Amino acid sequence: MEYDVGFTQRVYSHPPLRIDDPSPIPKCETDMAKKRNGKAKKSSWKRRSKPGDAPGTLVVDPNAFPTLIRVIGFGGPDIIEKEIQDLQELRSLIATTPLLWVDVVGLGSDSTLREIASLLQLHPLAMEDVVNVYQRAKVEDFDHTLFVIARMIDGHDAGLTEQLSFFLKSNVLVTFQERYGDCWDPLRQRIRQRRGKVAESDLDYLLYSMLDAVIDSYFPVIEHIVEQVDALEADIIEEVRNEQMHRVHELRGQLLGVRRAIRPHREMVNELVRDTIPSIRPETRVHLRDCYDHVIQVIDTVDTYRELTSDLRDFYLSSVSNSMNEVMKLLTIISTIFIPLSFIAGVYGMNFSDDSPWNMPELKWKFGYFFSLALMGLVASVLLVYFRRRRWI
Amino acid sequence: MEYDVGFTQRVYSHPPLRIDDPSPIPKCETDMAKKRNGKAKKSSWKRRSKPGDAPGTLVVDPNAFPTLIRVIGFGGPDIIEKEIQDLQELRSLIATTPLLWVDVVGLGSDSTLREIASLLQLHPLAMEDVVNVYQRAKVEDFDHTLFVIARMIDGHDAGLTEQLSFFLKSNVLVTFQERYGDCWDPLRQRIRQRRGKVAESDLDYLLYSMLDAVIDSYFPVIEHIVEQVDALEADIIEEVRNEQMHRVHELRGQLLGVRRAIRPHREMVNELVRDTIPSIRPETRVHLRDCYDHVIQVIDTVDTYRELTSDLRDFYLSSVSNSMNEVMKLLTIISTIFIPLSFIAGVYGMNFSDDSPWNMPELKWKFGYFFSLALMGLVASVLLVYFRRRRWI
Amino acid sequence: MEYDVGFTQRVYSHPPLRIDDPSPIPKCETDMAKKRNGKAKKSSWKRRSKPGDAPGTLVVDPNAFPTLIRVIGFGGPDIIEKEIQDLQELRSLIATTPLLWVDVVGLGSDSTLREIASLLQLHPLAMEDVVNVYQRAKVEDFDHTLFVIARMIDGHDAGLTEQLSFFLKSNVLVTFQERYGDCWDPLRQRIRQRRGKVAESDLDYLLYSMLDAVIDSYFPVIEHIVEQVDALEADIIEEVRNEQMHRVHELRGQLLGVRRAIRPHREMVNELVRDTIPSIRPETRVHLRDCYDHVIQVIDTVDTYRELTSDLRDFYLSSVSNSMNEVMKLLTIISTIFIPLSFIAGVYGMNFSDDSPWNMPELKWKFGYFFSLALMGLVASVLLVYFRRRRWI
Amino acid sequence: MEYDVGFTQRVYSHPPLRIDDPSPIPKCETDMAKKRNGKAKKSSWKRRSKPGDAPGTLVVDPNAFPTLIRVIGFGGPDIIEKEIQDLQELRSLIATTPLLWVDVVGLGSDSTLREIASLLQLHPLAMEDVVNVYQRAKVEDFDHTLFVIARMIDGHDAGLTEQLSFFLKSNVLVTFQERYGDCWDPLRQRIRQRRGKVAESDLDYLLYSMLDAVIDSYFPVIEHIVEQVDALEADIIEEVRNEQMHRVHELRGQLLGVRRAIRPHREMVNELVRDTIPSIRPETRVHLRDCYDHVIQVIDTVDTYRELTSDLRDFYLSSVSNSMNEVMKLLTIISTIFIPLSFIAGVYGMNFSDDSPWNMPELKWKFGYFFSLALMGLVASVLLVYFRRRRWI
Amino acid sequence: MEYDVGFTQRVYSHPPLRIDDPSPIPKCETDMAKKRNGKAKKSSWKRRSKPGDAPGTLVVDPNAFPTLIRVIGFGGPDIIEKEIQDLQELRSLIATTPLLWVDVVGLGSDSTLREIASLLQLHPLAMEDVVNVYQRAKVEDFDHTLFVIARMIDGHDAGLTEQLSFFLKSNVLVTFQERYGDCWDPLRQRIRQRRGKVAESDLDYLLYSMLDAVIDSYFPVIEHIVEQVDALEADIIEEVRNEQMHRVHELRGQLLGVRRAIRPHREMVNELVRDTIPSIRPETRVHLRDCYDHVIQVIDTVDTYRELTSDLRDFYLSSVSNSMNEVMKLLTIISTIFIPLSFIAGVYGMNFSDDSPWNMPELKWKFGYFFSLALMGLVASVLLVYFRRRRWI
Repeated sequence: MEYDVGFTQRVYSHPPLRIDDPSPIPKCETDMAKKRNGKAKKSSWKRRSKPGDAPGTLVVDPNAFPTLIRVIGFGGPDIIEKEIQDLQELRSLIATTPLLWVDVVGLGSDSTLREIASLLQLHPLAMEDVVNVYQRAKVEDFDHTLFVIARMIDGHDAGLTEQLSFFLKSNVLVTFQERYGDCWDPLRQRIRQRRGKVAESDLDYLLYSMLDAVIDSYFPVIEHIVEQVDALEADIIEEVRNEQMHRVHELRGQLLGVRRAIRPHREMVNELVRDTIPSIRPETRVHLRDCYDHVIQVIDTVDTYRELTSDLRDFYLSSVSNSMNEVMKLLTIISTIFIPLSFIAGVYGMNFSDDSPWNMPELKWKFGYFFSLALMGLVASVLLVYFRRRRWI
Repeated sequence: MEYDVGFTQRVYSHPPLRIDDPSPIPKCETDMAKKRNGKAKKSSWKRRSKPGDAPGTLVVDPNAFPTLIRVIGFGGPDIIEKEIQDLQELRSLIATTPLLWVDVVGLGSDSTLREIASLLQLHPLAMEDVVNVYQRAKVEDFDHTLFVIARMIDGHDAGLTEQLSFFLKSNVLVTFQERYGDCWDPLRQRIRQRRGKVAESDLDYLLYSMLDAVIDSYFPVIEHIVEQVDALEADIIEEVRNEQMHRVHELRGQLLGVRRAIRPHREMVNELVRDTIPSIRPETRVHLRDCYDHVIQVIDTVDTYRELTSDLRDFYLSSVSNSMNEVMKLLTIISTIFIPLSFIAGVYGMNFSDDSPWNMPELKWKFGYFFSLALMGLVASVLLVYFRRRRWI
Repeated sequence: MEYDVGFTQRVYSHPPLRIDDPSPIPKCETDMAKKRNGKAKKSSWKRRSKPGDAPGTLVVDPNAFPTLIRVIGFGGPDIIEKEIQDLQELRSLIATTPLLWVDVVGLGSDSTLREIASLLQLHPLAMEDVVNVYQRAKVEDFDHTLFVIARMIDGHDAGLTEQLSFFLKSNVLVTFQERYGDCWDPLRQRIRQRRGKVAESDLDYLLYSMLDAVIDSYFPVIEHIVEQVDALEADIIEEVRNEQMHRVHELRGQLLGVRRAIRPHREMVNELVRDTIPSIRPETRVHLRDCYDHVIQVIDTVDTYRELTSDLRDFYLSSVSNSMNEVMKLLTIISTIFIPLSFIAGVYGMNFSDDSPWNMPELKWKFGYFFSLALMGLVASVLLVYFRRRRWI
Repeated sequence: MEYDVGFTQRVYSHPPLRIDDPSPIPKCETDMAKKRNGKAKKSSWKRRSKPGDAPGTLVVDPNAFPTLIRVIGFGGPDIIEKEIQDLQELRSLIATTPLLWVDVVGLGSDSTLREIASLLQLHPLAMEDVVNVYQRAKVEDFDHTLFVIARMIDGHDAGLTEQLSFFLKSNVLVTFQERYGDCWDPLRQRIRQRRGKVAESDLDYLLYSMLDAVIDSYFPVIEHIVEQVDALEADIIEEVRNEQMHRVHELRGQLLGVRRAIRPHREMVNELVRDTIPSIRPETRVHLRDCYDHVIQVIDTVDTYRELTSDLRDFYLSSVSNSMNEVMKLLTIISTIFIPLSFIAGVYGMNFSDDSPWNMPELKWKFGYFFSLALMGLVASVLLVYFRRRRWI
Repeated sequence: MEYDVGFTQRVYSHPPLRIDDPSPIPKCETDMAKKRNGKAKKSSWKRRSKPGDAPGTLVVDPNAFPTLIRVIGFGGPDIIEKEIQDLQELRSLIATTPLLWVDVVGLGSDSTLREIASLLQLHPLAMEDVVNVYQRAKVEDFDHTLFVIARMIDGHDAGLTEQLSFFLKSNVLVTFQERYGDCWDPLRQRIRQRRGKVAESDLDYLLYSMLDAVIDSYFPVIEHIVEQVDALEADIIEEVRNEQMHRVHELRGQLLGVRRAIRPHREMVNELVRDTIPSIRPETRVHLRDCYDHVIQVIDTVDTYRELTSDLRDFYLSSVSNSMNEVMKLLTIISTIFIPLSFIAGVYGMNFSDDSPWNMPELKWKFGYFFSLALMGLVASVLLVYFRRRRWI
């Protein structure tokens, strides 16, 4: 069985997938997919449901991507991977497949989402959270369904996160993604090739593997920020420039964004680790503990670097101030030296009448001119020596 | 049964309502209602009861709006919605209606409030909190009555909040509002049309739906603030102006106000979620947990944006300082270049006597003038080159 | 029974009281009382006992007010209210009265205090706290005596607090006050007139009523501060002045003082609310919870306003800096424009000899003067245009 | 029995003590003791044991004071107080005395310390802490020995603390002090004179009394700092001077030092109060709770004053900035007024030829000079009025 | 048995060790070892495994040092210490030695690490953490294996830490080190010489001893930083210089680094102290509590010094500002005095015609010149007196 589905990391090269049956759905070319995903912006804080709306009201974002469904069935003798066009097909797959991963990508098709929710008996409040894609990471246990929300960070823009929602039922794991492309292709590959524990284990292990991948997606982002902070620090130490403050501000904003996205994961993963949730088996908890450590790792780094950029800002400001002071001091010293000299020149430029011998006798001295120049030189020297003494120059 | 009561979202178009019986109470025209509500200001911190007054003393604010009572009875075959003029009528409704929502709007009528409190056996301490409209959100359980206080935020002024008080008894839910108009009209509509769970469920679900609407009322407000902060940030990055600091300060004040209003809701909703309160059924707790998530969401956003505006302020200040430094540096450089030149001109303006050949021979040179100009040009060039070398210009 | 004892709120008009028997104690005229209380200053941080002194050593402040004792007995058929001169009388009252409030005002009489302590079997460590009037609010349970300390704030000076100590025994409530005058006169009135719950209830309700009055005494103070902060903010926005920073600093200091005084009350009241203290009945706990809410309210307001003044300070500083920058920029621009002009004037003031035609030919031009003026005008215009372009003016 | 041992508070006047037997140890004269203690510096952060050394290695500081041992035995018919030269004597005293306080002063004698530790079976890890005198206050329970560390503050230097270590065994209390002199002389006096509870009670009460004295030693220190902060605030409000910032910084450093020293005591005393330690009897716990209150009191004051000095620093900085701005503004205004005037004078100093009637006709006017002076006056007035209008002067 | 293995503290002088058998592994000369270790940089934040990789994937850093294995067997009659070339040898040693310490240094040999992991049945997730050397200190309990991570700090560079991983199984303790050289040579010496408890005790005591040495390695580092901070403070108080801010920033960065490294140890050691981990015996817990105190000690010092450097930075900035203000004020005063004088000279340099007697009569006065000089002197004096009065000079 060959699976060269040509997925790039975050963009479906050929969504919808055509595996067994030629798909009638128009192809999303990579470029088009990229372009559409390119339109994606910071998760809007706009709630679509209005205050007073019935709780659990499903208001789909008209600008969201159209919904595609794709399943991977495993755990039995065959591994089934297909695009779902007709939800009846999904219903029969659920009945026949030992373990089924239903991957729903794009939250733009109102009716499809409603049908999935009703078919899989997903709680309306949870579905409301699924389509309102600004939720914090969290876990909730609705009777026999474990509902998890996580946020994946975009490798190229720390401010852009994607909400991922998971429903874990007895033999079905449903995932909802905002955008095409994810970081789970290695996982799919492992299932297809029956490699690793994920193909042999239960769905809670698959859920853990997905969360692990999501949290690992933060590492390259903070590594990138950390490198930039370190480079900026070296740069500021070397020479202070105006635009550096802008960079500091930008990096602080990114760190704040990452922290905001990652922080709720701590509580979320911790709740999964604790032994109160029946759908998570003890052997998976050991792995989730590892996942928890990674979350702490990210939070810790972000917090440290928030502090470090705060220190950096103070350092930048004091450096700017120092360098500015140097400039102003030197300029002021130049003026201060020339002003008394100009005054002397001004005095000897006065037009007092020659009639009185008492008026400006220096003007008539033989070496009056040199005397005045010497006087100026003396004044300048005295000032220079004084300034040097006080270490101003 | 038709209910085109023409309520706008926050203003009763025809309070008091006339549904079954033509109301003898003078009509509150929308404009008048608006005008009266328009007088509303930030919840005053003035306690009306004095230190030493007996606890539970009811001191009504003489400037509060006159009290109107309106009930919706449901849960049985008929849905009853009427204005209550006579409290005897209320008493009989309580006895006969399965579920009754008593909505008391305006806290200005001393005797009416006292009668309601005595009829429904509301605890004096709770009633004291109801009329002292500066309470923090909280929940208290007086024997068989659940007492909840929440604060609704005004969509147009983040600093203006309205205290809402709830009493949940076996078959009666009493709400007290400060001002006319609320965000519960969609709820009323759902009850009237027997749509959604609220019409079929118990009063604790109604309470939850109300709280949910109250907390959802914070979303548009913070969305508005968030947009303004983002716009301000872009504006500051583009060009620094004096009034921006005022905007930053204002937005920080608004965020502080929202945080202060919303923060106690966390504890309040959390207490409702915990299973210690008998009047809240387990199935409602699931919904309240969703409500709790929303509170956390708002708090989280407000905290993030407080930090962000703090960063923004620092960025603004350093930008102002940078731009000011640029100006002062350039001006000082201009002065510094011209001061030595003026000094040279001053020297050649001295009036030393021509009698001595040693006095200012340059004045008698053929090209003395050009020499002096050249000297000035040289000095200026040297300074300019020096300043350029040191990257000051 | 008439009780026109003429107490003003915080000053005993006629201490000691004469109710039944003409008191032989010299009258404290209001003026004198005020004057003495007027001497009261911020609770000194001076411990009178020295390190190494035996714990429980009673060292009375020689400057404290002389001790007066006054009792109100109630709960039985008669209400007894008298000044106690002889402690034997107190002993017999304790034996015969169902409920007795012993109010000890002024902590200056060493022997009286010792006698009271020994008569009522008050713990030496508690008595040490009573006379060292810089304690934080706290509650302690010595076997059968509940010991509570609270701090009342002065309505006119946020920095001035008075320590109030309470001992609750089976049928006696002892209170110790630092200064004459308190906020409990309405309470006394209610007991005398057998109005309200306090006259019918047990002593724990009396204790609660007292604490409630004490905590309510903080409200006018913070309301006053809040008003001043709001006024100051409006003032700073309108125009920046030097003395405003002083006001900000002062208000921050007051808020710090209030916070320091009120904060320990949270823990204190909370401990009373929790059901571990047998002397507090459950029905009183409900009331204490209300009291707890008030404490939280005060703390919350103080914290919010600390933050707000912090923001205000930053805003003030940046406003000052902005306005200063404006001034300096304009002044520097004026100088910068005139310095090149002066330079030109200086050039044409040089005395190069007319002998050479190459020396300063402009001086001999027919319109040389106007040329020079035009040159100056041109330079000034160019600079003005340039400065305007860069938006400096 | 007479005990005029002439101890001053923190310096042994005659260590070692001679009570029963003339001591062969050379006398430490007060001056010498003071001098030696005078050498004491901030507790060094140098660990003497190296990383990798066996835990519990006893490495004595070669610069520490020589070790003196002194015991007070009580609880029986006789009170025994003597210097111990021979540890065999100590062994027999332990066997025969009901309650024994072994006071070890000076941690410089390696062999003596080892012998004491082995004789009294003190845990090696605890002994390591005893000689490494930079420990935080803590309590540990080694089987049958309670080990407590506290830090006493020096009344004259807030940065100088002394580590005190306590071992409480069944009938022996061992204390280790770094330096000669302590604050326990009143305690010793009470034991000798069989005054107070300490002489009748068990050793846990003695331990409490010692800790109480240690914690009380913080009060004069913070009172001193508080007074200085208040005085400094008044001073800054009156007039801003450069050295004030140094004072603020110094006081902040002192507060930080005190906080660092006192803070661990909270946890330490709290652990003693909790009923998990068997060597502390319930009746002593009541007293320790009082001690705990004192610790909180100190911490609270220190924290408040840290905040207050932070506010003070901001106030100082803004005052300095304001006053500096005033100076610079006035100076710049003076310059700004004179620069245009000088320009006018410069214009009329130009040497345009008289040949052309168009050149500088003002020079030939009859009142040209007064005209020019009037012009200057006019310009100056206009500027002055303008500056006054804008409230710059 | 002689062990002059010539280890320096942090560099294996002869790794791999040759004890019994001449090792065929090429010798790592000290210089070479140093050089290789010298290449070591701040623990990179680069994860080598990619998001989506199977959890527990072992991706060895190609730049890590080659892996060497060395064992010390003890607890029985012989002490065995050898380099392991063949893992079969290790297998037999495990079977035959009562207590075995397997020390794996260098994490660069993929196959060796895999073999060790499989031989000793180390959990894949733990092994992943071992090779990803940027983990925070932590403890995990995988069934029968206790897994601990600690970070040792480099004595010469506070920013450089080395990850140490420990696996404690029934009779084997495996340690993984990043770099050659450690701080455990004294420990090895004690085992070889059967000195101290470590040679007689179980492996949990050995683990404790190692952790103790690791944590003690922080002391010299913070002592060094503390000394530098204190010296810098004294330096700033004496004289303010530009580069001091750089030093403050650097030291703050170092403190942040140390804090980040040490902080997770608190939780880690605390977890070991708590009695939930079966592999740690109660008698070892006593020692770990001591270790915990040391961690707290380090954290406390770091936090205090973070605050102190923050204060120091504020002090530095205000000092710089004060000193700068002094300079600018003096310079401006000089200019301000000379500008009016220059103006007077300019006035008497005007060329008003002598024709009119009203034009500049002073020029014709006999002592006009002296008059003008006197006028200038007067103006200068008035200004000087005024400036002195206002305390500007």
